[in-house]
Amino acid sequence: MIGKEIRVFSPATVSNVGPGFDVMGFAIHEPGDEVTVRLVPGRGVKLIKITGDSGQLSLNTHENAVSIPVKAMYERLDLDFQVEIELRKCMPIGSGLGSSAASAVGGIFALNEILEGKFPKEELLKFALQGERYTSGSNHADNVAACLYGGFVLVRNGPPLDIVPVSTPDNLVCTLVSPKIEVRTKEARKLLPKTVPLSVAVNQLGNAAAMVSGLMRGDMDVVGRAMEDLIAEPVRAKLIPGYDKIRQAALDAGAIGCHISGSGPSMFAFSEEEETAMRIGRAMKMVLEGLFISCSVYISRINTNGPRIIG
Amino acid sequence: MIGKEIRVFSPATVSNVGPGFDVMGFAIHEPGDEVTVRLVPGRGVKLIKITGDSGQLSLNTHENAVSIPVKAMYERLDLDFQVEIELRKCMPIGSGLGSSAASAVGGIFALNEILEGKFPKEELLKFALQGERYTSGSNHADNVAACLYGGFVLVRNGPPLDIVPVSTPDNLVCTLVSPKIEVRTKEARKLLPKTVPLSVAVNQLGNAAAMVSGLMRGDMDVVGRAMEDLIAEPVRAKLIPGYDKIRQAALDAGAIGCHISGSGPSMFAFSEEEETAMRIGRAMKMVLEGLFISCSVYISRINTNGPRIIG
Repeated sequence: MIGKEIRVFSPATVSNVGPGFDVMGFAIHEPGDEVTVRLVPGRGVKLIKITGDSGQLSLNTHENAVSIPVKAMYERLDLDFQVEIELRKCMPIGSGLGSSAASAVGGIFALNEILEGKFPKEELLKFALQGERYTSGSNHADNVAACLYGGFVLVRNGPPLDIVPVSTPDNLVCTLVSPKIEVRTKEARKLLPKTVPLSVAVNQLGNAAAMVSGLMRGDMDVVGRAMEDLIAEPVRAKLIPGYDKIRQAALDAGAIGCHISGSGPSMFAFSEEEETAMRIGRAMKMVLEGLFISCSVYISRINTNGPRIIG
Repeated sequence: MIGKEIRVFSPATVSNVGPGFDVMGFAIHEPGDEVTVRLVPGRGVKLIKITGDSGQLSLNTHENAVSIPVKAMYERLDLDFQVEIELRKCMPIGSGLGSSAASAVGGIFALNEILEGKFPKEELLKFALQGERYTSGSNHADNVAACLYGGFVLVRNGPPLDIVPVSTPDNLVCTLVSPKIEVRTKEARKLLPKTVPLSVAVNQLGNAAAMVSGLMRGDMDVVGRAMEDLIAEPVRAKLIPGYDKIRQAALDAGAIGCHISGSGPSMFAFSEEEETAMRIGRAMKMVLEGLFISCSVYISRINTNGPRIIG
């Protein structure tokens, strides 16, 4: 096995997705992480290089989302080689795009490919969740599952944990706008209420269920009306300067819905044509520029594959 | 128009449906109500006869679910005849089978048919809700919408109110067991918590969304695991003697899931074959008989039509 090397692209993901707080997510085609895993003589797991992180991430294997899952898998097996990992971050960190999930999935997926698919996806998910848990302090699998399985998924908290697919229309396009400000997932989580009024819980579950039916039937009118988050967005929107105006600009430009991606500050919008998606991106960006905040804009269809080998 | 008469069968409905508390419902083929609407000389709406109710229901048009919607429609129009209504209850009252919704929909559907479909379904729904609201004290449209639209629906609380269809596998069979004890919807509603922990709200919405995806894809394993109600069932189950044993008997007999229908005391179970559905019914009945409670058992596929003209 020594000498084997695999390079993987692991996609960014949008989680929460309006009413699907903590249970829904989908993968996109860009941005994402590139993870290289290489087998060399020796023992253990080593994180030898990180680029694109502006020095924000630790090379300590106990402290990085990419290496924690790889270490966990390594320790489960009796391996007679060292695993070297290189991580190239090609996406913003702490931006609500599932950065740690992309790293966690990329590393474990690459090692599993080298090991010729030794573990099934359910097991990879458990390993990857360990990396996600360390970085975000959350046990929620929405980003990790969407990244690993690809497509639009919903996570039914178990036991057992179910990753349930939700088919989406082929022409669905996602506009992602990632402002260059940071919102820590752990901080965003602290803002959440501990309890919610029964009526809010009922309306949220009605919206979530209606969104699933709408997506699966291609009824984007229903999806648009159901894309409402009554639980997290009301408190988290305050962390994003100009949130209401950005959202309104997206809707005015033709978005079916516009919400916070993950715990923010990135925001996503759905539309049905790439041209509309680009117009939405320009409109959202213009609001941010008016507030002297720069941002990255990504346009992508739903990525139904998840991670893929690129070298 | 005078002399015209239409008789309608209006189906019973199962609402809540596990995790779909207050938002999901489906219609079945039996039991149901029979409502006759007749135009005679005069003015106003008159409820002339009710049978099958053991004297429980009022002939006062202001106090009966069947006549309240008809009066509301009548008053909206300038009509030069009297509307006579006859109601034949062919289903238990206050049993969690949408008895008042069946009456409310039956009357308004019959009058609208006589008026050659003057009002669209969205309007009929609003009229019917007035009857439901009076009888159950609840504003929830899950029974009424399932009865009127037929099939499996979910109600997205608006504005605007959306009745969202959920397709179900053709072979899905429902076993309904209706114990001869009464649970008042208003009383059952008082037991509900005013707030729910965030984690419960999230798990419930994950289950509801997973159940929708499972039903639409015919993945009954996911449906079975997602059919869990963490909000209403824990408190309402106490109103049904032997609830845990009845449920376990249904599952042991092959049920995909077994839950309270509406606010109870009726319980429903899903399965994939009529033979299994009948075995489940016998098993549930046996537990009730051991507690000296008699019950009615109904076996039905999902009724995708809603109300239908029978004379």
